[in-house]
Amino acid sequence: MASAGGYFIEDLTGGHAETFAKTVTDADIVLYSGVSGDTNPVHLDDEYAAATPFKGRIAHGLLTASFISAVLGARMPGPGAIYVSQTLKFKAPVRPGDTVTAKCEVTAIDRAKRRVTLSTTCLVKDKPVVEGEAVVMPPSREG
Amino acid sequence: MASAGGYFIEDLTGGHAETFAKTVTDADIVLYSGVSGDTNPVHLDDEYAAATPFKGRIAHGLLTASFISAVLGARMPGPGAIYVSQTLKFKAPVRPGDTVTAKCEVTAIDRAKRRVTLSTTCLVKDKPVVEGEAVVMPPSREG
Amino acid sequence: MASAGGYFIEDLTGGHAETFAKTVTDADIVLYSGVSGDTNPVHLDDEYAAATPFKGRIAHGLLTASFISAVLGARMPGPGAIYVSQTLKFKAPVRPGDTVTAKCEVTAIDRAKRRVTLSTTCLVKDKPVVEGEAVVMPPSREG
Amino acid sequence: MASAGGYFIEDLTGGHAETFAKTVTDADIVLYSGVSGDTNPVHLDDEYAAATPFKGRIAHGLLTASFISAVLGARMPGPGAIYVSQTLKFKAPVRPGDTVTAKCEVTAIDRAKRRVTLSTTCLVKDKPVVEGEAVVMPPSREG
Repeated sequence: MASAGGYFIEDLTGGHAETFAKTVTDADIVLYSGVSGDTNPVHLDDEYAAATPFKGRIAHGLLTASFISAVLGARMPGPGAIYVSQTLKFKAPVRPGDTVTAKCEVTAIDRAKRRVTLSTTCLVKDKPVVEGEAVVMPPSREG
Repeated sequence: MASAGGYFIEDLTGGHAETFAKTVTDADIVLYSGVSGDTNPVHLDDEYAAATPFKGRIAHGLLTASFISAVLGARMPGPGAIYVSQTLKFKAPVRPGDTVTAKCEVTAIDRAKRRVTLSTTCLVKDKPVVEGEAVVMPPSREG
Repeated sequence: MASAGGYFIEDLTGGHAETFAKTVTDADIVLYSGVSGDTNPVHLDDEYAAATPFKGRIAHGLLTASFISAVLGARMPGPGAIYVSQTLKFKAPVRPGDTVTAKCEVTAIDRAKRRVTLSTTCLVKDKPVVEGEAVVMPPSREG
Repeated sequence: MASAGGYFIEDLTGGHAETFAKTVTDADIVLYSGVSGDTNPVHLDDEYAAATPFKGRIAHGLLTASFISAVLGARMPGPGAIYVSQTLKFKAPVRPGDTVTAKCEVTAIDRAKRRVTLSTTCLVKDKPVVEGEAVVMPPSREG
């Protein structure tokens, strides 16, 4: 069982998409601050954040992007894949209470190099908040 | 006090670099799994991970990258800056107990567009484990 | 049931002592960093901490002191008591893996002002790591 | 670089003040309960707390005080300083949703003993909720 529930590169086709969704709570923001060390007051301080262009506290951009990791690492390709690279554009703020859906969709497959490219988008109520592209190396049935 | 301890774009110059370092503990990995939803066994399951090419559990790639956020959000440019984009290449695994130093260095400043580009590198014992580039919009003294 | 398991001032006598003990884990340190915002590298960065006089990472002093709160708030006097003041002297470092015992002992009772003074000591293997004094207002049977 | 971004005692002068602010969320209260072991229902149980003089749940007093640690440990004096002592008077309750600003101001410097005294105040909308005094030993340029 090389892939523990994940996909082999031979099982993937262009257009294959999977999602992971999570509501961002204050708990996520506090925990992410502790893990990352990012104590920017725009995430932690209501009074500071109210005076910024965001008009209130927002989640860390890389916290939102972490849900992409939940798709790639736990769903598709899932366990056994090696994360090669990720690009991220932060398009709009995510606020405590927002539910983020991360959607990853296969856009290219290079079997010779065993690399798969996916578009990676995070949405809040169908509006993109993070856009980017991932490259991963899924396991192969050929070992 | 628009920047709450951060830098205005007028205060930044090419080559300015700042760092944040943190030892990655099992607690970080468990908490990051909970926040992100990424339950890939390569991060959580010693027995599964021992049988992978990594020969043991590793930290989530985006957990390591989160220390870049600690530099950009809390140090340089710091509070008041808006995160525009980030690219990441995952070069080598980070294991529980490794101490990661995230280093961000200004490589380009576009005052007309109020954008600053930084190289963003995460190192373990001087070896790059994550490489990439960030673009941020720091606050301006011109409002 | 005014006190939800706690003591009324009429039930307390000089010399009454209670304890709470907890092993300080890396998880406690990461979580406390997130809650407090204290990202001092002496708590988070093995390499930095190894070069300090402490020769390794240590727990936040006020994290250790928090176990005093566990005695006062949950045991003796327990629920219903109001925390008036606390003094703390940090005597020795606490390291991840150390088990801390917080001991609170009644040293004075002022029924007229409804105030109780307690010595508050945190110990690791019988060595004091934090010493101080608390003043609390327990509930009274007289309402 | 003995101080990793912190101040040497030679850099400090009377009246120097720095702050750290954070909104206290339910997540902070739950996490602090877990770390500290203080499960007093006045922090955790809406129904119990509604019947107390506080008329609702409040944050742990030492949770509020932890923001003092964020100033002293991460800002001023910052990394490299050793925490000697802290006094705390709890003046008013802090409720979930309140934004607390911890302000530390140098009140005395004893270079011979390498000790700095600071007033340490926590405020909610300019009202003191915790007052006290800290003594710390910052690093010295003289080694």
